[in-house]
Amino acid sequence: MNAPELIARKRDGGELGPDEVQWFLEHYHQGVVGEEQMSALLMAVFFNGLSDSELGVWTDTMIASGERLALSGLSRPTVDKHSTGGVGDKISLILAPLVAACGAAVPQLSGRGLGHTGGTLDKLESIPGWRAHLSNEEVRDQLESVGAVICAAGSGLAPIDRRLYALRDVTSTVESIPLISSSIMSKKIAEGTEALVLDVKVGRGAFMKDHARALELARTMVRLGESHGVRTVAQLTDMNEPLGRAVGNAVEVRESLDVLAGAGPDDVRVLTLSLARHMLHLVGIDEDPAVRLDDGTALQVYRDMIRAQSGDPDAYLPLGVQHATVVASRAGIVESVDALSVGIAAWRLGAGRARKEDAVSAGAGVEVLIRRGDRVEVGQPLFEVYADDLDHRDLGIHSLEGALSLTDNPVIVRPLLLDVVGGAE
Amino acid sequence: MNAPELIARKRDGGELGPDEVQWFLEHYHQGVVGEEQMSALLMAVFFNGLSDSELGVWTDTMIASGERLALSGLSRPTVDKHSTGGVGDKISLILAPLVAACGAAVPQLSGRGLGHTGGTLDKLESIPGWRAHLSNEEVRDQLESVGAVICAAGSGLAPIDRRLYALRDVTSTVESIPLISSSIMSKKIAEGTEALVLDVKVGRGAFMKDHARALELARTMVRLGESHGVRTVAQLTDMNEPLGRAVGNAVEVRESLDVLAGAGPDDVRVLTLSLARHMLHLVGIDEDPAVRLDDGTALQVYRDMIRAQSGDPDAYLPLGVQHATVVASRAGIVESVDALSVGIAAWRLGAGRARKEDAVSAGAGVEVLIRRGDRVEVGQPLFEVYADDLDHRDLGIHSLEGALSLTDNPVIVRPLLLDVVGGAE
Repeated sequence: MNAPELIARKRDGGELGPDEVQWFLEHYHQGVVGEEQMSALLMAVFFNGLSDSELGVWTDTMIASGERLALSGLSRPTVDKHSTGGVGDKISLILAPLVAACGAAVPQLSGRGLGHTGGTLDKLESIPGWRAHLSNEEVRDQLESVGAVICAAGSGLAPIDRRLYALRDVTSTVESIPLISSSIMSKKIAEGTEALVLDVKVGRGAFMKDHARALELARTMVRLGESHGVRTVAQLTDMNEPLGRAVGNAVEVRESLDVLAGAGPDDVRVLTLSLARHMLHLVGIDEDPAVRLDDGTALQVYRDMIRAQSGDPDAYLPLGVQHATVVASRAGIVESVDALSVGIAAWRLGAGRARKEDAVSAGAGVEVLIRRGDRVEVGQPLFEVYADDLDHRDLGIHSLEGALSLTDNPVIVRPLLLDVVGGAE
Repeated sequence: MNAPELIARKRDGGELGPDEVQWFLEHYHQGVVGEEQMSALLMAVFFNGLSDSELGVWTDTMIASGERLALSGLSRPTVDKHSTGGVGDKISLILAPLVAACGAAVPQLSGRGLGHTGGTLDKLESIPGWRAHLSNEEVRDQLESVGAVICAAGSGLAPIDRRLYALRDVTSTVESIPLISSSIMSKKIAEGTEALVLDVKVGRGAFMKDHARALELARTMVRLGESHGVRTVAQLTDMNEPLGRAVGNAVEVRESLDVLAGAGPDDVRVLTLSLARHMLHLVGIDEDPAVRLDDGTALQVYRDMIRAQSGDPDAYLPLGVQHATVVASRAGIVESVDALSVGIAAWRLGAGRARKEDAVSAGAGVEVLIRRGDRVEVGQPLFEVYADDLDHRDLGIHSLEGALSLTDNPVIVRPLLLDVVGGAE
């Protein structure tokens, strides 16, 4: 076997055999196949895709390149959730303790945010003392005692993916459905969860801009999970507008606490409960999560989860000292609040990072004061922005300029929950 | 500007602006854009091509990365020829002195052979003492005194192309019309010739297997030449069967001498004269090259050219000591002599190289004793093979096994000269 021959076959629309896919990835891992050759293959895959067989072996080889967590033998069934990334997506912070409160164990191993979509770890790190890095043993112990863990995925899981991810970033080969699927699913399968619910975002603020592509991504990941023994369901959800009111780090933790207290924005509550129902269904737990949200048990599990990772759940979480209110310059009905613009604003305010080694600001963020369909008058507050300094604040305000479109006509509110793939469908 | 953004645009079928193409190539040359990023761009170009504007700037930037030969001020007009590579293609050895004998100056800066197609320099190096490497001043002096130079293209011409060529080889991005065109034409334009005739081979033994692709390549190169002030014509010629009888190094020099002496295989003579007429027409010389071939002046220029580069034109050129004759095992009419099989046989016998640092054997090669349309009987000699040792000899014989197809029906001989692009067309 040689790399140019395999690249040429994929380039010309042919299929690679299981041995060939494995050979290419393993030799890349060993440094025999060069970065330039992997780049060429990734671009060929971008154009010609991977067959189910190729994708299965690709994913297997990534998993086999590292360790697998052993979660069997816990007293509760394990079920995880993964979101493809949205603006204001704080769902994990509420969902993990909620599903644990209903009797499952939720091993949520997460990554950092990059670009305009925030990362769950970045949000939780706004809590004083909270530790993202746990040993495998700590993860297991906390799943047994608390039922929920949100922590950093160790570098031992699917190490090939780590290199591929960095390479795809600099070679513009990120937006490929098989490559996205294998990257997400290799880590989730290696993590050892029994079941998995995927929240696939669709819309201007999401990675997938259109429904058909999002559906294809969902189906690919569900097939990959099921063929590896992980019961998998994917839910497609709208990401044209930010989720909830808060976009940032501390500001999103605050909003999550509101929802855990039985209040908070409707859309966050609705999506959390829908995902929770799918998760519980997959592991055969017949509980209504709404009850656990309203009776305070989910909040209690959240507090235990934060404390188990050395965080103080009662700490005051300050927002950025440089604060401004953006007001409406004309009247009208809100036709849309653009998730991408709001995500970029939060990023520019300091809540996100451009490169993975950048630090993020805990207090930076946006509060969205209006929703699609609302009537606004001249001078009415639209957004509150928070940053650590004036430069960041002004960059953020600038990014919000085109975020709102107004109309004179009535606006139909779009559904949040769009489609389900896998399970009962 | 940043590399991932430009790669993504090309990947998505968009066009890069002149500044962007230049930026990408220059920053690659400087080591700022990485090999993995260039690989990804090359694969995207493989799929989506380059517009005329992109290709023009791509070629300009490759030329500007190195030196340009100053050939103006010579007493004769300059005209060069380039072949896209065939089996038994010894045309340059005859053509350069022939066109010089008619009054033009031919600055033929060549590369080495790779794979199954031989290289002109490898062939000439079978002549004792002959030097492939000349200084720019020696090239100029020899063009003035002799009128013809065949020598190695200096590393100073289009140095980006040198790196891209190596990168394309390991990443399977060779077979792209704009990338082939810019690679060939950047060196020819930098070489400083006023006019250029391209021999674009089509068929099983050629790089381009089908007519339509070969025509597209020819048109692309002609446009590129003309837009850079080089008068350019391309001739498409058949390469399903080897050119002439001899395939190898010394064996091809011998055959070239036959043609220069007014004899030799018809197809070699016909193609040489056709290309010579195009070259002379481009520089406005009204001479019949057939006269100069038959009256011995072309042979005299050849002898001067070899001597000027320290070679002995009268030296005996031995063939490989391990010799065998391959005979027919059944009777029939020759339907085809497969150029690719014969080329691979010559390569395996030792005449070609697999990697650019390999040495080649001067004496290794094949003589093809039959032509398409010939009737053969059982036991009739088909090929003579020559190698330096028995291992190579047997590898070569093995490669010839499927080279001949026989039929019981009459065979129509295909034309050698297929199409002309540019000039009078």
